[in-house]
Amino acid sequence: MSLLAESVSGYLENASWIRRMFEAGGQLKARYGAENVYDFSLGNPDLPAPAAVGEGLRRFAEHAGEPFAFGYMPNAGFPWAREQLAAHLSKEQGVDLEANDVLLTCGAAGGLNAFLRAVINPGEKMLTFAPYFVEYGFYVANHGGSLQAVMSRPGTFEPDLDALEEAIDEKTRVVLINSPHNPTGVVYSRKAVTSLCRLLENKSEQYGHPIWLIADEPYRFLTYDGVEVPSVLPLYQYAVVISSFSKNLSLPGERVGYVAVSPKLADRARLMAGLTLTNRILGFVNPPVVGQHIMAAALGSQVDVEVYARRRQAMAEVLTDAGYSFQMPAGAFYFFPQAPGGDDVAFVNRLVEERVLAVPGSGFGCPGYFRLAFCVDESVIRNAAEGFARAYAAVAGK
Amino acid sequence: MSLLAESVSGYLENASWIRRMFEAGGQLKARYGAENVYDFSLGNPDLPAPAAVGEGLRRFAEHAGEPFAFGYMPNAGFPWAREQLAAHLSKEQGVDLEANDVLLTCGAAGGLNAFLRAVINPGEKMLTFAPYFVEYGFYVANHGGSLQAVMSRPGTFEPDLDALEEAIDEKTRVVLINSPHNPTGVVYSRKAVTSLCRLLENKSEQYGHPIWLIADEPYRFLTYDGVEVPSVLPLYQYAVVISSFSKNLSLPGERVGYVAVSPKLADRARLMAGLTLTNRILGFVNPPVVGQHIMAAALGSQVDVEVYARRRQAMAEVLTDAGYSFQMPAGAFYFFPQAPGGDDVAFVNRLVEERVLAVPGSGFGCPGYFRLAFCVDESVIRNAAEGFARAYAAVAGK
Repeated sequence: MSLLAESVSGYLENASWIRRMFEAGGQLKARYGAENVYDFSLGNPDLPAPAAVGEGLRRFAEHAGEPFAFGYMPNAGFPWAREQLAAHLSKEQGVDLEANDVLLTCGAAGGLNAFLRAVINPGEKMLTFAPYFVEYGFYVANHGGSLQAVMSRPGTFEPDLDALEEAIDEKTRVVLINSPHNPTGVVYSRKAVTSLCRLLENKSEQYGHPIWLIADEPYRFLTYDGVEVPSVLPLYQYAVVISSFSKNLSLPGERVGYVAVSPKLADRARLMAGLTLTNRILGFVNPPVVGQHIMAAALGSQVDVEVYARRRQAMAEVLTDAGYSFQMPAGAFYFFPQAPGGDDVAFVNRLVEERVLAVPGSGFGCPGYFRLAFCVDESVIRNAAEGFARAYAAVAGK
Repeated sequence: MSLLAESVSGYLENASWIRRMFEAGGQLKARYGAENVYDFSLGNPDLPAPAAVGEGLRRFAEHAGEPFAFGYMPNAGFPWAREQLAAHLSKEQGVDLEANDVLLTCGAAGGLNAFLRAVINPGEKMLTFAPYFVEYGFYVANHGGSLQAVMSRPGTFEPDLDALEEAIDEKTRVVLINSPHNPTGVVYSRKAVTSLCRLLENKSEQYGHPIWLIADEPYRFLTYDGVEVPSVLPLYQYAVVISSFSKNLSLPGERVGYVAVSPKLADRARLMAGLTLTNRILGFVNPPVVGQHIMAAALGSQVDVEVYARRRQAMAEVLTDAGYSFQMPAGAFYFFPQAPGGDDVAFVNRLVEERVLAVPGSGFGCPGYFRLAFCVDESVIRNAAEGFARAYAAVAGK
């Protein structure tokens, strides 16, 4: 007898690439020792959380014995936490946000699900640029919608607005962008973001319903060489930022994220009422109590981005020396080089022989490339150099 | 232009009773002062968390500066946390559970959503006995299913298995029970639970698919006069327990719950794979890091149930003296008396005039009754006595 729903059975047959690499990695580590495996497959930040996180936690712990210390709160989060977050985001995003314009969520993934549950009618679509984080497809399917990927511009991975315009139809309810971008490291320019907002403004009018723009930006804090990450919030009334403190505070396991809505939207109170409801009925109920205390204590802190900058340099040297073609990431902690030989799955398997773990571009809807996450110690990058070189030579030298 | 999905717009028009009382309460408290309002509307445990919670938190805080302290973990939770939970539940439930038989979730609400996402095909049904917690209806609708309520036996609120049998058809995928029961305080007998499992075993066979039995039991720890709460896990292969530490550890805001599957199910690894996936793709990703550390530290501890026992006694006296008809709760922290005059909404509004906040039975699919949550100080119960008496006399005396 079938234990699971049909959709979930289907998903299990097609387990994600990231997971497969995770399992292959586990086997390699068991066999050769973790220190002899060069694992670039996971975006799990390895830098310790900033000191303010621990301080906030210890301060909260002093009150753990009081009634309601861990009690329920309004579904949108503690009012004081929303107020502090709004003040922080006002500066960051260059807009004037109030407590009622932000909703605290269980991570960005929780925020994305709450948002999609609130705005997607069954049968509607979300568009995003490929390559893309595969989980987006699940998130929209959870609520009866579907994800349609639009290939970004070859080589540069800039958003292809002509292709996007062509893909938008009356079933399009949401467009999602992710800048700084996973897996390519591209940061969308102000010109691109402004044009995108103008396009969506026109299309919303044309179809008579809002086409929401989600900016998923957990890597906003992490750009190199002074690159700017323009905010969507001042540009478009149907824009929302959905993000988290998973990367800038190395806090992914505690699940603290948020949705911030554009102050240009006149009836944003209604959107927020919908989000507060969906956040509740999806079972999140509220973001974790302790996470909110930590977040408030650490707002404005972040991990040492210079460490990431040095690793990026090291990885660029290793890849260049070995002969790979790649675009230097402008943000985030990923490289997305071309797979030598063109077959990304075959090449990633060849890397496994060198005890190097990567994720094929096919896992991001973009075959022919592979992703390397450099949230690992610089020594891991340096020590993998030989393996990268051998794998390249073995395939490209043929 | 419509900002929200149609279903969510509809929900907002019909905001829940509990929420309406919450808002009415806020107005009363603003006007008269919180100490002059007798709020029995919310099940937010007021007892402080046991000492072990704070100790666990302080111990964890010592490690907050280490890499990965707040990092991602497997989607089912920390392996060590699952192992400790499995050992704890093995004793509690009288079965032999291993780490792989339990999944840590973001509260029971998160566990219910992950479970329903995993097993419900669109168009299928979940059955439960009325009165019931209204959120169940949202949880199953989130995943394209619907909730059908079967009235429990009048007066006693025992499960009516004949009515249930009649309601089960080929679209029935899940039956949910909640014992000790919110809002009635009823605890289902071993005989009732055993008969229910036998019925579902037969019906699963008849329809050729599992009819899952969810036991939602956050109040298992809270029974009076030594009443037993039989476990469903040893009785039925398609039984799962979905629960949390929200009530027994006064921890509802940190969102730590779990799903435990029956060891009688041969292929429970597949169910667990499905749950681990749905827990991820719904955006929970994993239960909060800190919550898991707290839970592990406090397993086996609980709040002082004697306090609840005294309040129950006080509430029973107040209601009896005033003339109300009610059944003494055998568990949980609720009374569900008959509404004098028969109109529960009208009577609850009458109570508001006395600055007493309750929730109409209509909010639980059971008009003619009202719910009182006694997770408030005994003095609140005593001080409300006059208001209860006046409201009763005003309506019943007519």
